[in-house]
Amino acid sequence: MAFDYASVFRSAIEDITAEKRYRVFAELERVAGRFPRAIYHGASGKREITIWCSNDYLGMGQHPDVIAAATDAIDRMGVGAGGTRNISGTNHPLVSLEAELADLHGKEAALAFTSGFISNEASISTIARLIPECLILSDELNHASMIEGVRRSGCDKKIFRHNDVEHLEDLLQAAGKERPKLIVFESVYSMDGDIGPVGKICDLAERYGAMTYIDEVHAVGMYGPRGGGIAEREGEMGRIDVVEGTLAKAFGCLGGYIASTSDIVDSVRSFAPGFIFTTALPPTIAAAATASIRILKASSAEREAQQRQATRTKDVLLARGLPVMPSVTHIVPILVGDPELCKAASDRLMDKHDIYIQPINYPTVPRGTERLRITPTPFHDDRLIEGLAEALSEVWDTLGIPYADTDRAAAAE
Amino acid sequence: MAFDYASVFRSAIEDITAEKRYRVFAELERVAGRFPRAIYHGASGKREITIWCSNDYLGMGQHPDVIAAATDAIDRMGVGAGGTRNISGTNHPLVSLEAELADLHGKEAALAFTSGFISNEASISTIARLIPECLILSDELNHASMIEGVRRSGCDKKIFRHNDVEHLEDLLQAAGKERPKLIVFESVYSMDGDIGPVGKICDLAERYGAMTYIDEVHAVGMYGPRGGGIAEREGEMGRIDVVEGTLAKAFGCLGGYIASTSDIVDSVRSFAPGFIFTTALPPTIAAAATASIRILKASSAEREAQQRQATRTKDVLLARGLPVMPSVTHIVPILVGDPELCKAASDRLMDKHDIYIQPINYPTVPRGTERLRITPTPFHDDRLIEGLAEALSEVWDTLGIPYADTDRAAAAE
Ligand SMILES: Cc1ncc(COP(=O)(O)O)c(C=O)c1O
Ligand SMILES: Cc1ncc(COP(=O)(O)O)c(C=O)c1O
Repeated sequence: MAFDYASVFRSAIEDITAEKRYRVFAELERVAGRFPRAIYHGASGKREITIWCSNDYLGMGQHPDVIAAATDAIDRMGVGAGGTRNISGTNHPLVSLEAELADLHGKEAALAFTSGFISNEASISTIARLIPECLILSDELNHASMIEGVRRSGCDKKIFRHNDVEHLEDLLQAAGKERPKLIVFESVYSMDGDIGPVGKICDLAERYGAMTYIDEVHAVGMYGPRGGGIAEREGEMGRIDVVEGTLAKAFGCLGGYIASTSDIVDSVRSFAPGFIFTTALPPTIAAAATASIRILKASSAEREAQQRQATRTKDVLLARGLPVMPSVTHIVPILVGDPELCKAASDRLMDKHDIYIQPINYPTVPRGTERLRITPTPFHDDRLIEGLAEALSEVWDTLGIPYADTDRAAAAE
Repeated sequence: MAFDYASVFRSAIEDITAEKRYRVFAELERVAGRFPRAIYHGASGKREITIWCSNDYLGMGQHPDVIAAATDAIDRMGVGAGGTRNISGTNHPLVSLEAELADLHGKEAALAFTSGFISNEASISTIARLIPECLILSDELNHASMIEGVRRSGCDKKIFRHNDVEHLEDLLQAAGKERPKLIVFESVYSMDGDIGPVGKICDLAERYGAMTYIDEVHAVGMYGPRGGGIAEREGEMGRIDVVEGTLAKAFGCLGGYIASTSDIVDSVRSFAPGFIFTTALPPTIAAAATASIRILKASSAEREAQQRQATRTKDVLLARGLPVMPSVTHIVPILVGDPELCKAASDRLMDKHDIYIQPINYPTVPRGTERLRITPTPFHDDRLIEGLAEALSEVWDTLGIPYADTDRAAAAE
């Protein structure tokens, strides 16, 4: 009898449904000029809601100059790139974008990809494979795309405890100074909002002769005087060998990149299948991203407003006793601690309060730490923050989700 | 002494340079409304050239309705999607696009990715891994992105000789009917322009109880009454389990997709890191692609014009004795057979004739089969074809590249 393929996929879906991990995507329609408002296409029709979990962290996707750059490029050059980078896909705006990115990070060169995911996967694997006997040292909370890159390299790897420089040092020491080593880590970890010890990791890399690869996906545009990220803010940019970032979060567009020495960039360009065998980023996206990067290089107003509103959000929610998890960044996670409750809280926020915050459950975060992840932007004003706090309190009360500190919660009501 | 990392990357670049495999990307600026003309940004400044190797096969990237759909979406919704599919990135145009794609291929559901590369990698690996003890049977000339998917699945694999159904049958038979098997292959192979035996592979799949996965990247939009690809043209669409395609070639935009049963699509949606952990396609790209698909579903004029101009190009070049490699599709490869000559021919076409055709060398094609790969579109009119033929003859004569048939070549001059 032939194998029953259909039942395999059916039961895979049934399993995650039983585990309460089946995801339903909310269908949204952003409204340029009215961010963070959006139109929600729900079962009972369309209505306006407020997005509180966008990774368009500064609202740059709707910035008039970014929109103008995008539409101008389409009018002049059409939509797609028309080929891989080699097969007539290297468009002029993409070359300008790469120059802009190299400058942003103070590096010799940069290389753009169609996503941050593929930039990590392709770059980590290609760089590590070119280095003979490379040992990769990887933070345990690194993003899925970095894990894919580490795996695909086929190199030996050691995982160090999250942000634990002592553990990292033990592993570096055990490997010995002679052995080539690549340390891969993030600056801002997006689910908890904590920050990697960039300077200390660079110290260790120097001491033990390791290369450094940092993912600044959740930091570029948002930290540092020109938006170069945490490494720029901390004056460590020159000590990082490879910086990776995205054009799809603070810059509001699409695509990913690395910036590094000319030779490293040229090696990834020349050897990575994930770069070579795929259509290039469209000129419209490259032009829009370049406009966005330039704005954020020259102006800190967006960064400051974001930090102000994020701090305010934390303060207002904490004052109500809501369980805001400790975070030193623009990310505001609120602990729920149960997958069903987390989903129910998200549903109730949408149904009763026209607020969209998707539930973050396992495997994105460890079981028992299910949460709502809130990302205030410069466009989430004080009135919206007040409304969010009230809505969350109502949901917490109705569903009986634990507060952080019941006395303070009672006092706030 | 610490390891000398810089020398590793330096010598990697030196090695491919010595092997004549170092690639220089031509910097081009497409001109909407004047396709296939483009502005070339060369060392000595800018000038207008004609692109003869675009994978925007039907020029849809500059179609007025596609441009209008793209700019309209940007004006209304901004540039980026703002998040992963789960984190507020599921935009309304993307949901419409997926419905359009499912309809195009007569399947229950479809799923969009940011590239055809990642759609292959993520889908093949996820599907094969969900099937217990899956054996993958893969055509030896499958694209790099399919090879990545096969590798990443971690499953056993057997490679069958290119388009060789007898070899495939031997392997299927050896595996036995009970063992779950996935056959992965392409319809149009883009470097030679030949076509996979879709019907015969489906016969074998039924006979031996295997699943089928076809890459129609170089066929969607261009073959079949509604542009559903080779499987549609040959009436085999219903027998294919999973069809994969791109939005970046005939549809002129960016992105990739699969179409299949709801359960298979839902499984990839739920389990593939390359789908889950990356920012969604922007609404502008989704809207433009949807417009492009709709146009090509309703009209065959573009397909017919492309076939006419491709046939004409082959005829005109053959009449001059140029070594056109056998191709049953819109792809017109011309044999050079040497990497340096191939690069020199490409350079001379650009420098003397303002024609851009990039050299195709190893590893994209086997050594000794280096070629120029020409892709006539509906916009390459008879006058342009004549000019191409003259330019190629001049280059062939000057560089002493072998003709196919010297008598005919002499007669043509
Ligand atoms: C740390 C990190 N790196 C990389 C990525 C991938 O970036 P992109 O969305 O551009 O693919 C993400 C999230 O999407 C991320 O959180
Ligand atoms: C057969 C095949 N599959 C997949 C791809 C990747 O598609 P995309 O360019 O959309 O990444 C390509 C070429 O780019 C290809 O030739």
